[in-house]
Amino acid sequence: MPSIDPSVLTKFTEDALKAAGASDDEARTVANHLVQANLYGVDSHGVIRIPEYIDEVEHGRMKTKTSPKIVKEGKITAVIDAQFGFGQVAAKMAMELAMKKAKEHGIGGVTVHNCGHTGRIGAYPVMAAKENMIGIVWVKGAGPGVSPYGGKAAPLGTSPFTWAVPTGSDEPMFADYATSVSSEGKIRVMMSKGMKLPPNWLLDKDGKPTDDPAALYAGGSILTFGAHKGYALGLMVEALGGALSGGGVADDFVGANGVFAEAINIEDFVPVSEFKANIDRLIKKLRASPPQEGFTEVMVPGDPEYREERKRSKDGIYVNDNIWSDISKAAEKYHVAMPATKH
Amino acid sequence: MPSIDPSVLTKFTEDALKAAGASDDEARTVANHLVQANLYGVDSHGVIRIPEYIDEVEHGRMKTKTSPKIVKEGKITAVIDAQFGFGQVAAKMAMELAMKKAKEHGIGGVTVHNCGHTGRIGAYPVMAAKENMIGIVWVKGAGPGVSPYGGKAAPLGTSPFTWAVPTGSDEPMFADYATSVSSEGKIRVMMSKGMKLPPNWLLDKDGKPTDDPAALYAGGSILTFGAHKGYALGLMVEALGGALSGGGVADDFVGANGVFAEAINIEDFVPVSEFKANIDRLIKKLRASPPQEGFTEVMVPGDPEYREERKRSKDGIYVNDNIWSDISKAAEKYHVAMPATKH
Repeated sequence: MPSIDPSVLTKFTEDALKAAGASDDEARTVANHLVQANLYGVDSHGVIRIPEYIDEVEHGRMKTKTSPKIVKEGKITAVIDAQFGFGQVAAKMAMELAMKKAKEHGIGGVTVHNCGHTGRIGAYPVMAAKENMIGIVWVKGAGPGVSPYGGKAAPLGTSPFTWAVPTGSDEPMFADYATSVSSEGKIRVMMSKGMKLPPNWLLDKDGKPTDDPAALYAGGSILTFGAHKGYALGLMVEALGGALSGGGVADDFVGANGVFAEAINIEDFVPVSEFKANIDRLIKKLRASPPQEGFTEVMVPGDPEYREERKRSKDGIYVNDNIWSDISKAAEKYHVAMPATKH
Repeated sequence: MPSIDPSVLTKFTEDALKAAGASDDEARTVANHLVQANLYGVDSHGVIRIPEYIDEVEHGRMKTKTSPKIVKEGKITAVIDAQFGFGQVAAKMAMELAMKKAKEHGIGGVTVHNCGHTGRIGAYPVMAAKENMIGIVWVKGAGPGVSPYGGKAAPLGTSPFTWAVPTGSDEPMFADYATSVSSEGKIRVMMSKGMKLPPNWLLDKDGKPTDDPAALYAGGSILTFGAHKGYALGLMVEALGGALSGGGVADDFVGANGVFAEAINIEDFVPVSEFKANIDRLIKKLRASPPQEGFTEVMVPGDPEYREERKRSKDGIYVNDNIWSDISKAAEKYHVAMPATKH
């Protein structure tokens, strides 16, 4: 289990992506994004993606040295065609543009289509929150794999939703989750460990509940979180990240992700200081709640990520041997030396 | 069990509210809203509220013959002080203003504070969807009564979230639900019928799971839907409907509801015809899914309401005897004659 210094891992990721064809800017943006995901403990969206992205580039599904293009623009709206480039580059650009428009007029909303995998989407609304705005991002996931409430077919994606709001500290409160009960990546990890799934996660190909993660890859489907309520939230993601972005819906969707990124400038509604004081009071109340049986504390969204970041910034990032070996193989092909690890 | 013609019930509701002090406009808006809730099968937000609203007026918690006031306005944003008048009047005005701004610039966002009960909030985003916009409304509910994920305290409200998108038909797809696993009203109804609750709905005052609805009124709390994911969605409602509206957060909240109403003009992103075709294709795919065990069909959000509306428009609205008796008492005080019912 190698443990690596984050800056060393970032430099290596950048080199590997550049060797595979990415421009300097693309490589830097994606490398910073992936390593931040690992720092935050979201390993399913970290450097584990390097071989996948390189494979997509090699097979022409993802383009390098390309730029997202604004194809329609209004005062507070814009439509971006990512031209099948890295999703992290296009999503970051969309959020920056939404923030610029919000700073000027109060709200900005920008869509992205023809877009690669946007990665750990919690990264984007936090950009707005750090500038005293509320960030909300809806990301259509290509799917298929998720069933509608009450159905056996699986035309939907895990379509996640994420938001962030500023607090009195420099750590915004943020949430980032799939509208299915679990991401596909988490189920894959549990399968690789020989684990069983909790109840109400998965259906097999006949639409029967199962605790066997392998059933997903034999025609099964993931359930929506919170039954019909998570189903409805997922359909909102279909509407905003899919139909409004121009990427399409359900399994008739083009690209890996479709995005609707929105920034809301707080000062256009209430004084920022009042807003932050209210959010801080809310957080204090939540943390002060005595825990339920089976819990040791009440957390607020973002806590798990910030805690892991503090730990990993100091101790380094652990990458498991299987993943490390896959990354080595991808890097070897491009003659990029693997970084030293501390054991 | 009296059954009443919807237009007769509307006229009566209008008369009762006017007799209790409401202006003509207020009475008309609120009566139309309540009877539409009954038509849609959402009886917890229908004419059952007449005695409650009259009581609030009598005790000065709700003001009549008042107008929501725009206290801050930008090109695409506005802040409304509802001055403790009927929530339906203020929320409708907020949505209309957001739509006007969206029509002109692409997006409009309007908050409301000092606001009465906004009723069946699914009514508002549908207004936008009927004009080829996407409507999203976040409504902070005063609470308390809902516990944070993992906690025993109950500082949160049932804070609902609602959206609507246009389809190829004249029935937009819309969803409207509490971010708690159930609304308070539904638990009250189950208690009155001597029913037990499903698992994972309620905690008793000691934070232990219970199936006894009465435990809510003895210091218990409702759980968030979908565990930590519904919890996070509820906190977004706190941020938008609470902190951003200026009404406050958690149980330090002023008024019955706080609102953030948003309209997104589709044509500023993609052609409306393309958007509608995509949503229609999505709906068709969902309905075509074979049902899971225990289900007879796959529905899309809004189906239950539209079906009930078709039925009740023809058969009339059934109001149960207890509710009818409460309404009679409230009306009697103001010498408003009860309408005839067909049995």
